[in-house]
Order: sequence, then structure tokens, then C-alpha cells
Amino acid sequence: MSKIDLESILSENASKMRPSPARNILAGLNREELISFGGGYPNPETFPVDDLKRIVETLLRESPSSSLQYGPTEGDPKLRRELANRYRSQGVDITKDDIVITTSSQQAIDLCSKIFLNREDTLVCSLPTYFGALQSFWFWGGAPVGVADENNLESTVIKLIEEGRKPKFIYSIPDFQNPSGVTLSLAQRENIIRVARLYDLTIIEDSPYRELRYSGEELPTLLSMDKERVILLGTFSKTLTPGFRLGWIVANPQILDKIVVAKQSADLCASVFDQAIAARYLGDGLFDSNLIKTIELYRGKRELMLECFKRYMPKSVSWTVPEGGLFLFLTLPFGYKSADVLKLTLIENLAFIPGEIFFCNGEGKNTMRINFSYAPNEKIEKGVKILATAIESVISTTPDYR
Amino acid sequence: MSKIDLESILSENASKMRPSPARNILAGLNREELISFGGGYPNPETFPVDDLKRIVETLLRESPSSSLQYGPTEGDPKLRRELANRYRSQGVDITKDDIVITTSSQQAIDLCSKIFLNREDTLVCSLPTYFGALQSFWFWGGAPVGVADENNLESTVIKLIEEGRKPKFIYSIPDFQNPSGVTLSLAQRENIIRVARLYDLTIIEDSPYRELRYSGEELPTLLSMDKERVILLGTFSKTLTPGFRLGWIVANPQILDKIVVAKQSADLCASVFDQAIAARYLGDGLFDSNLIKTIELYRGKRELMLECFKRYMPKSVSWTVPEGGLFLFLTLPFGYKSADVLKLTLIENLAFIPGEIFFCNGEGKNTMRINFSYAPNEKIEKGVKILATAIESVISTTPDYR
Repeated sequence: MSKIDLESILSENASKMRPSPARNILAGLNREELISFGGGYPNPETFPVDDLKRIVETLLRESPSSSLQYGPTEGDPKLRRELANRYRSQGVDITKDDIVITTSSQQAIDLCSKIFLNREDTLVCSLPTYFGALQSFWFWGGAPVGVADENNLESTVIKLIEEGRKPKFIYSIPDFQNPSGVTLSLAQRENIIRVARLYDLTIIEDSPYRELRYSGEELPTLLSMDKERVILLGTFSKTLTPGFRLGWIVANPQILDKIVVAKQSADLCASVFDQAIAARYLGDGLFDSNLIKTIELYRGKRELMLECFKRYMPKSVSWTVPEGGLFLFLTLPFGYKSADVLKLTLIENLAFIPGEIFFCNGEGKNTMRINFSYAPNEKIEKGVKILATAIESVISTTPDYR
Repeated sequence: MSKIDLESILSENASKMRPSPARNILAGLNREELISFGGGYPNPETFPVDDLKRIVETLLRESPSSSLQYGPTEGDPKLRRELANRYRSQGVDITKDDIVITTSSQQAIDLCSKIFLNREDTLVCSLPTYFGALQSFWFWGGAPVGVADENNLESTVIKLIEEGRKPKFIYSIPDFQNPSGVTLSLAQRENIIRVARLYDLTIIEDSPYRELRYSGEELPTLLSMDKERVILLGTFSKTLTPGFRLGWIVANPQILDKIVVAKQSADLCASVFDQAIAARYLGDGLFDSNLIKTIELYRGKRELMLECFKRYMPKSVSWTVPEGGLFLFLTLPFGYKSADVLKLTLIENLAFIPGEIFFCNGEGKNTMRINFSYAPNEKIEKGVKILATAIESVISTTPDYR
């Protein structure tokens, strides 16, 4: 047996990869005792277990061969048709040929990065934005430029173009953003479309939470505002089960052609078995009734979380009030670090994600992402108390260096 | 609505991608009538449908939450433990920490390419070799150098090193190779290990067919000969179901650390549901009994195919006699093109894969890969007759330009 010198043979890509800090935060905690405000986990109560049991039984009785064989890279035609029907029922006029199934929407982001990004290419995203997207952008050599206020989108784009660094695309999560929980107004959506058209930019609309609205009025997707220019990413992870790792891309067929070839060498196709289950789940009309139950559950958890925040949080702390999705975003007074708060809460087995990782420019040390979908109700109140106490302790013991 | 100019924003990666010609060959054929010697499809008779039905029912009753939630990027610990047990029972001393689960072994190849290959990096592979691997190598900018005779491995490596192009790794499919069906002898395996040690090279041992041996004696894996230097890729696609898209990588933990971070941004984790099913399938001891049935079935199909070849093929044609796996490889007299044969057989609804795509140097125009696992027995004889007639027709009508 002889050792290899790994560092000497790794690619530049491998040396640029950034692991998710969230994994390290959660490693080594006692799972039974843990109160998790950390991950973007759906609540297991929302999994339609009995329906899935019945569907699998039917599939393996009626069509075992096709459910267990290799499938097309584009995805199961039945599933693509069901999804297209669903979009059409919401007024977005597409067919199955405008949809490709991916192995999670993380893969959808990765494939988009793969086909668009050269080393040093810029792209515009929000400040903060989804860490998994930043991971892919960085991995492919992209240089994300964050925009804190959507009103500054145009001036940022102009500046980049003047510098010869025209962005390859705008990445946006318009509904109940991860991590901020914030939803773009109609005017903000119109502005994104206007800027994209004016400067000839593509838009990636990441839409994992859109169906989970608890208050306020539904706003149009960017896709519905410009079908040529917008690539929409969807997923079953928050509305059916993340265990299937199924997402999809809606885009014009020329872009999808490239996505399909990129996916071929990535994993040939997504789980054929899980796709067949999802197709039948949609086809049997089970999606919406479970979605209604899920929304009820999460609306209650959001109310409870916000109530507890009002009751326990120190006055100097602020937070977003999301109309949907899984997260709210908390801001400490400037100068205080959420990482210091985390050290204290972990002693009490409470986890959350410090907000810094969502900022592509290194800001956000005084912010934190709080998930309200996963924890049982009795743990939500307990968790907020622990969090509030830890924040008070950090504020009262940190020297004020502003 | 405004059109985007796609070509102007695609990455260099996207413009270098090569789609699989196999997909185009099969598109548009009448599926009912088709006789497929084309894909590497397992026979649906081998799918353990009743066992899977029972396992899903149990899983969704006993542990629905963990089977449907997000899972660790490394893969389901139970599944990794079962796989490690299996390797240990075969004399390869590893634990679950030496294994990472991937979304198919195609992804395993892609992740290895991702962490090792810079643009223009060379790697050594066989001539011919698996097209999906070439696709990934090319995609990541790698320059595969093919070795037709394993005895020339050392001289090829020396030449590349002298040219300042030391290969990043050796890619090999030692058992029942795709596409050739050929198995490396013990001496050839020892030679690969010797060369790798002498010139300090990593080896990727792609092992999708190893468990499917119909004759001859089992030979040691490269992994068992050097656990530090060899990265082994395995899959359930040929022994359980390709529908789950589950593969794995066995490697030393430092390499797996890099693989895991690369996988995080690729798709976070493989299907948690399918992993839970596979883990229980192994845990319940069902793998080996189904494997025995599968081997019996394929052994019969191989015999039938070889018999038909002997009976119908023109004398000037030669083919490999595989001891296992899914393929045999046919060679026409030099100068004749298998693509011309394909044109004729497609008229009769018979598909196979012209061998050229498996040669990284553009050779192999007179070769073809023939799959014998998928077609029903009555179609095997009919298909070989069609193939032989088409070959005779091409040989008799092509001007001999040798």
C-alpha cells in the first residue's frame, strides 16, 4: 500500500469548493434533544405517507418495468405533462417540452451554472441569498455581485457593464426568499423584467417556496412576465418530500437542450421510481389537498414564532415578517455577532444558521436565519426563549465597538 | 417578450459538451416493435418487484419521516454500513466511512472528474471505453489518452510524463468492460497497480458489472490490491434497479471529503427514499438470491446470443466472448462502417450502438456494441438474423477501399 499526495492532484475546482457551514453546525448535536431552527426542513407531518404507500403499491403492480428501468434525461413525460398542466391552470402557458426534471433544484442551479458560467463571469443576486446557489456559482468560477436593495439593480448592472463585466444572469427568489423571508412587490418584479430586457439579461427565478403562502396576495411569477428570458426552478422538496430529490426547470427549449446534455454527464436522469410516484401523485389530484394542510400547519407555526418573538426578544433586535415560506430573518444591532449567539444556544441544543453565509460579500455577521416549519410547536416557544436569552447575554457582555 | 441570444451567453463548458449519440439512435423508433441490442438496460424480469413492494410498505409504516426527509450528503449510514459489510464479506476490509453514496455511478465519474481534472489534464483509459465516462472527462476539460493494449500502459505513461503531461488518473473497467465485454487478467491487474505505484498515479476502478459473472474465475478488484490508490465505483443499476439512480464510491476518506463537498453543490444528496429501500433490501439478505436469478437469466441470454452469432454471422466478422456483464463487441473487416449497418437494421427496428463513440481517438468505425441482457429470447435470434443480413449487405455493396 502506498499513499498518494492528494493535494498535488486535486483540480483548481476542488481547491475552490466551499463546504456548507450548516453541516458542521448540526454535526455532533444530540438529535433527540435538538431544537432546530436551522435547516430548511419541511415538517414530517406534511408527508402524505398513506397516499405514497398506495401509489407505490399500484405502480409496482401495474407498471413495474417502466418504474424501475432507466428513463429519459429530460424526465418522465407523464410528470412533465402533469407539471405543465399545473402551470397552465395557473395561467402560465407552457407544455411538457418547456420542462426538464432535475435531481433536486440544487442540481437545477448547478446545471444552469454549468452552462452559463465561465471563470470570473459575474452574475447579480440578492444580498443575502441562498447559500447553496452561491456554492454552485463559486464552484463554477462565477463572481456573484450582491444587491441589497432591488431598486439599485439597474445601477449595479450599468456599473458592471461599464467595467466590461456584464452579468451572465440575474438570480432571484421572488417569493418568501431564502434566507430573508422577503417577497418582491409587483413593482420590484416589473423592474427586474425591465432591466433584464433593457440590458439583454437572462433571469433565473428560483421558486421553491411559492406555493406556501400564508397571508397577502399572490403576485405573478417572473416567468409569466417573460417566458423567453426567465428560467424558473421548481421543486417537490417543500410540498411533497425532499426525500425524492426532484426538481424541475422551466425554460425555452433551446436552453433546455443544453441543460439536458449537461445533465447526461451529471447523472443520466433523476430517480425514475420517484418520478413515477410524483407523476401519479399529481395525476390523482392529491397535490392540492395536501398543500392546503401544509399551509395551515405552517401558518400556525409562523404565527406562534412571531408571537414568541414579540414576547421574548430584546427591543434592539428586528426581524422580517414573511408572508410565506419557511424562514424569517433576524438582525442584531450592528456590531454584535450571531456566531457568538450560536455558541450559547448550542449549549442548550438550539441550532440556527448565522446569516453571514448568505452574503456573497462577507457582510451579515449580525444576522441569523430562523426556520419555523420544522420544530414541533412546544419546541418553538422553548427555542425562542433560549434564543432571546442568548441574544440578551451577548448584547450585555460584548463591548460596544460601533 | 424578447428573445435572448443564447450562443452569446453560453459558457465554454456548454459549447464543449457532446450529446450521447445513443439517444438519437433510439429516438423515433416504435418501442413495441423495437429489438434493442443498444442500451445497457437490465432485463425487467430481474427487478425484485414483490420484495420492493413489501419493503416500501414496511418503511412507510415504520420510519416515514426519516425515509422522506433530507439526508446526509455522504448517504444513508445504514446503506453505507450494508455495503461495507458486503465488501468485507468479500475480503475487502473497509467501513462505512470509506463509502459515499452517489446519484448513479455516472455521477460518481462526474464528481471524480470535477475534483481531479483541470483543463487539458490528461488521463489514461482503455481504447475503447465507456462513453459516459468520456463525456464527463471531456466536459471537465480533460484529455483522455486511450491504450488499446494494456501491455502498453507503462510506455504510454512514460511518454506522457516526458511530455510534461502526467496523467491525473488511470480509468479502468476491469470486469466485463463496457463496451468490449473483455476482462483483465490477474497479470494485467498487477501491471496496472505496479505502474500506478511506480509513477504515483491514482486509479479509478469502474465496477458496474463485476457481480454478473457467468463463466471463468473471479479475479481480485484493483481496490483490494491497493486501498490507498484505487477509487472504486459501484452501482445498483445492474443488480437491483437503475430506476433508483444509486451508485457509490469507495475511496480513502481524504478523497471522499472532497467528493462530499462537490456533491453538496451538485444535488445535496441522493434520493433518501430509494436509499432507505436499498438499505433494507441488503439488510434483509435479498440481494444475493436475486443476483443468482439474474446471473442465470443473463448466462442463458449470452449463450443464445453467442450461438446465434456462430450460426448467422459472416466469416469475416469477429466478436468478443464475455465472461460476464451485458455486452459483446463485434468487429467488421477494416474499412467497413457499423454506421452503414445501423442504417439498414433500423429499417427493421433493430438498434445497436456503433463502436466509434467509445474510442476517444476517433477509431472504431468498424465496431459495434451488442447488448444481450435486455431483449427477450425470441427477439435475440430474430435480431441477430437481421444484423447478420445487414452486415452481409454492407460488405457486399461497399467498395473495398482498404
